[in-house]
Amino acid sequence: MSGSLSVIGLGPGNPQTLTPEAAAALDSADALYGYGPYLDRVPSRAGQTRHASDNREEGARAAAALRHAAEGARVAMVSGGDPGVFAMAAAVCEQIESGDAAWRQLDVAVVPGVTAMLAVAARVGAPLGHDFCAISLSDNLKPWELIERRLAAAAGAGFVIALYNPISRARPWQLGKAFELLRQHLPASTPVIFGRAIGRPDEKVTVSPLDAVDPSAADMATLIIVGSALTRVIERPGLAPLVYTPRSADGAGT
Amino acid sequence: MSGSLSVIGLGPGNPQTLTPEAAAALDSADALYGYGPYLDRVPSRAGQTRHASDNREEGARAAAALRHAAEGARVAMVSGGDPGVFAMAAAVCEQIESGDAAWRQLDVAVVPGVTAMLAVAARVGAPLGHDFCAISLSDNLKPWELIERRLAAAAGAGFVIALYNPISRARPWQLGKAFELLRQHLPASTPVIFGRAIGRPDEKVTVSPLDAVDPSAADMATLIIVGSALTRVIERPGLAPLVYTPRSADGAGT
Repeated sequence: MSGSLSVIGLGPGNPQTLTPEAAAALDSADALYGYGPYLDRVPSRAGQTRHASDNREEGARAAAALRHAAEGARVAMVSGGDPGVFAMAAAVCEQIESGDAAWRQLDVAVVPGVTAMLAVAARVGAPLGHDFCAISLSDNLKPWELIERRLAAAAGAGFVIALYNPISRARPWQLGKAFELLRQHLPASTPVIFGRAIGRPDEKVTVSPLDAVDPSAADMATLIIVGSALTRVIERPGLAPLVYTPRSADGAGT
Repeated sequence: MSGSLSVIGLGPGNPQTLTPEAAAALDSADALYGYGPYLDRVPSRAGQTRHASDNREEGARAAAALRHAAEGARVAMVSGGDPGVFAMAAAVCEQIESGDAAWRQLDVAVVPGVTAMLAVAARVGAPLGHDFCAISLSDNLKPWELIERRLAAAAGAGFVIALYNPISRARPWQLGKAFELLRQHLPASTPVIFGRAIGRPDEKVTVSPLDAVDPSAADMATLIIVGSALTRVIERPGLAPLVYTPRSADGAGT
């Protein structure tokens, strides 16, 4: 009997945004692997083991889960948001490619989820309503120069930009530097959205113009959306403003 | 009493990928608006009216839903995938900005969903595992030259590219032209994924190298993911290959 590994997206963290497919995959697993705070979001079930690991140990965590599945277990790896977006699905594939040949014979499934940029965008309107990109601001696995090149290419071509992993204790200056660079390409009034913990009790969403944005207001769990030159803010007396990017653009992308 | 408008993401179309939050919002609505085939996915409920419209009438559909909500109704606008990604949330915001001032006072909520690129990516592994972008290939609302500029910028900077709205009867040549342009920037072996109807009975997913890809195999409902120079295919004897983009990149983005 061969085991299986499901890599499961929990969505932004509120059980109301967990898909029935993901809930069923979690429930049917013999063993759960994941970063501790994500595992804590999954209701416990008798007979199911839990294997929490630290944030920076994706490769080792993926290998441990694959080894367990190869022993015949039904293993679930939990990921925040969508597992395919700066999360565990790529780490699992890396281990399958480089690891034990038997791992290629496992039943591996990825169960998608609502990734952070979609949850944050929904809260303010439709800032991703036109062409957009997603960039991880972490320079742990790629050089900072490449990140700068991508930010410039994206802003210069009129993409809205979602920034994942914007800041951490070990990477304190990168977000400020990114905003500095983006200010060379985008109007000072470009709306910038900071969102975290969407749908959870500590949810926080703010909208600021690019020239007034404060990098220190972000943390590891913040998802940032930087508008394009087209992104608009609709003021609504007594209500939060709506932020959206129109579906149309002229030849200049503006 | 003032009405409300929820713009709701149905996900890729299988009820197992509809979030509980979206299901509850659909159920509590007095009236449903949307493109006919999306409305057909929602179970009917006594006392709830349905207002189907054609694919190309987003603006008029959004205005009709806002008018109905302004009369005091709880209105739900359905969208395939996520409403904020090339779907109805931006069309609704456009109408709020340009339409009746009373519409700014409505309770408007966007309910996110699993957008097509996440569903297709999950089926093959983790092709969006590194920085990526999403581009609508429709030149109905933006000039083709801008689309070409964005494709070149994205491929040149090493983004994986998800293509929405790749082809239609009225836009028959654009996808072939896009592949032609991408071949100037990417290796011939770059994996290209075509996916449609994920989780539905007619689901179809294929993986081909960029130099052998056939644009005529796509239709309006196909989501295409074009890898970067880093995207890899893991062959698995007797199983479908896994396609993923590693989390690491060097300074060249390769």
